[in-house]
Amino acid sequence: MIAPLERARRLARRSRAVAPPNPWVGAVIERDGVVVGVGRTAHPGGPHAEVAALAAAGALARGAQMSVTLEPCAHHGRTPPCVDAIIEAGVARVEVGLIDPDPRVRGRGIQALQAAGVEVRLAPRAMRARLADDLAPYLSHRLRGRPFVVGKIACSLDGAVADRWGQSKWITQEAARELGHRLRAEVDAIIVGRGTFERDRPQLTARPGGRLARRQPVRVVASRRPLDVPEGFVVASESPGALLAAGAARGWVEVLVEGGPTLLGAYLAEGLVDELLVAIAPILLGDEHARHAVDLGEGRLLEDAIRGAWRAHRRVGEDLVAWVRLPAATALEDAYWGLESQVLGAIGCR
Amino acid sequence: MIAPLERARRLARRSRAVAPPNPWVGAVIERDGVVVGVGRTAHPGGPHAEVAALAAAGALARGAQMSVTLEPCAHHGRTPPCVDAIIEAGVARVEVGLIDPDPRVRGRGIQALQAAGVEVRLAPRAMRARLADDLAPYLSHRLRGRPFVVGKIACSLDGAVADRWGQSKWITQEAARELGHRLRAEVDAIIVGRGTFERDRPQLTARPGGRLARRQPVRVVASRRPLDVPEGFVVASESPGALLAAGAARGWVEVLVEGGPTLLGAYLAEGLVDELLVAIAPILLGDEHARHAVDLGEGRLLEDAIRGAWRAHRRVGEDLVAWVRLPAATALEDAYWGLESQVLGAIGCR
Repeated sequence: MIAPLERARRLARRSRAVAPPNPWVGAVIERDGVVVGVGRTAHPGGPHAEVAALAAAGALARGAQMSVTLEPCAHHGRTPPCVDAIIEAGVARVEVGLIDPDPRVRGRGIQALQAAGVEVRLAPRAMRARLADDLAPYLSHRLRGRPFVVGKIACSLDGAVADRWGQSKWITQEAARELGHRLRAEVDAIIVGRGTFERDRPQLTARPGGRLARRQPVRVVASRRPLDVPEGFVVASESPGALLAAGAARGWVEVLVEGGPTLLGAYLAEGLVDELLVAIAPILLGDEHARHAVDLGEGRLLEDAIRGAWRAHRRVGEDLVAWVRLPAATALEDAYWGLESQVLGAIGCR
Repeated sequence: MIAPLERARRLARRSRAVAPPNPWVGAVIERDGVVVGVGRTAHPGGPHAEVAALAAAGALARGAQMSVTLEPCAHHGRTPPCVDAIIEAGVARVEVGLIDPDPRVRGRGIQALQAAGVEVRLAPRAMRARLADDLAPYLSHRLRGRPFVVGKIACSLDGAVADRWGQSKWITQEAARELGHRLRAEVDAIIVGRGTFERDRPQLTARPGGRLARRQPVRVVASRRPLDVPEGFVVASESPGALLAAGAARGWVEVLVEGGPTLLGAYLAEGLVDELLVAIAPILLGDEHARHAVDLGEGRLLEDAIRGAWRAHRRVGEDLVAWVRLPAATALEDAYWGLESQVLGAIGCR
């Protein structure tokens, strides 16, 4: 038996690729332990998860309990406030996952529900932590005004991403590359440096399962100098911070920095990378003149190395794929928890 | 309920540090499904596993079944042949793990048992594969006349083992270093290059749990030039192959090449490294002038990279530790299976 909020969480994930820049949310309505309606966020302008679940439940929503991964909205956006629909349907209790950090919500959704006599309960902390993880790109967009940034590295055991002649096809094997395509299909933009663009002429399209995904990321080549790019590519001459801010304004909640070492180094040096996706091939180049994964462009004492933490790792085909969480992601989490405790204090919710 | 041969295998492992250059073997004697005696190899000159198990079983060995991880010896070494003791004790059946590749055995143990009317059964292939893995250093010593070679790397995510100023203390953390000390306590020799010796002045002692292990590896500094070393260190001016052959003659069955990058590169270039133990810290140096894990001293096309295979990986404290199997180890396994099928064919055992 799966808990209703966990079920809502899994529903939410299925909206990952369609919802941005809105949050991907899941909702489950239960009556006497029986699920009577589920919903998840549609594309922007389409119904939110709560409204979809209420529509499914119909008259059964009256007196029922709703579990929703994010605080229901209390403002008019492209759709009317979800709290109005919840109240009108006569839902008795709402279990809320995260506080919505959008400046137009931030506790107002919960307040409106409580004011209408709906009982509101916060999800347990462990579940909220999982939800904060799932929604990190959305939290980043609303709390920091910049997308969540994932840096991708495919390297040998000795950290080489290309041999000394620049050859980098293919260090890792098919299965790890497929994982890269699935990630591309989730992000809003892919950024590469000029060197990588000129040497590899990458397509930068998302092709999970070998087929073009319906929704494609914006393809960005970072270059201070003017550059001829094919149809569909964008050249960005801004600094990393300025590009991310401009992207956020366009609704990017997550971007992928695919290299090369110099571009990744520039984002890392400014503390703008939240997570690294590292695919390590069990091979050795053994060449000091090979290109290594990251180039910060400076000598660094070991004690000043950029320090992350392993988040997960697993074998993917012949390669080992690991996710490394960097301090920027930890700071984002801390920012969410800070906001949450402030909001809960202000509205007097436990 | 643990199978008797698996139990014997676990016993064998406990003799890993005392048996070399003899094989570490475990034996279990069962009567009607009840264990009546167990034994494992003692130090060289002490009783073999079979004799120890027979002594424990006493009169109960008559008509019983013995499970032993390696073919019992049929020759007089420092101790009398185990097969004589097994036959004399009246053991009815013997389940044998591996064929002993020692030129003085190679099926003669099984033949002697069969000639005396003892029923001999070979362990299932999957179990033999596990045993071949456990006994790889012994198999290497007897089949190739050289120790099994493990190369150790402690590096950053981007493959750096030291910053550009040579600082390498500490890339990985306490837990991974402890694992290194446990490995040191198992091997017969540790080899480092002159550069590493001069820069780090490592003690190269095995200190699992912070305490000096009772059995210490020989500490070797590879240097073509004469070198002043402290008491207890040895300077080796031979080539990697010659040093390993000389070591094998002195009874080394496993050695650890602890770096630096040039020495490890020399062993790798000659195909002499069987396995890599890689501890990866979740940090980035981002400096092309940092020292990277392996230096083969030449430019290498990506397609000519040394290619291994992940064998195991797990989090150890803050680091990720992985074991990578290189082609030399696969060749050793193949050599064992070749010998096994030849011996079994010759003695007419299934």
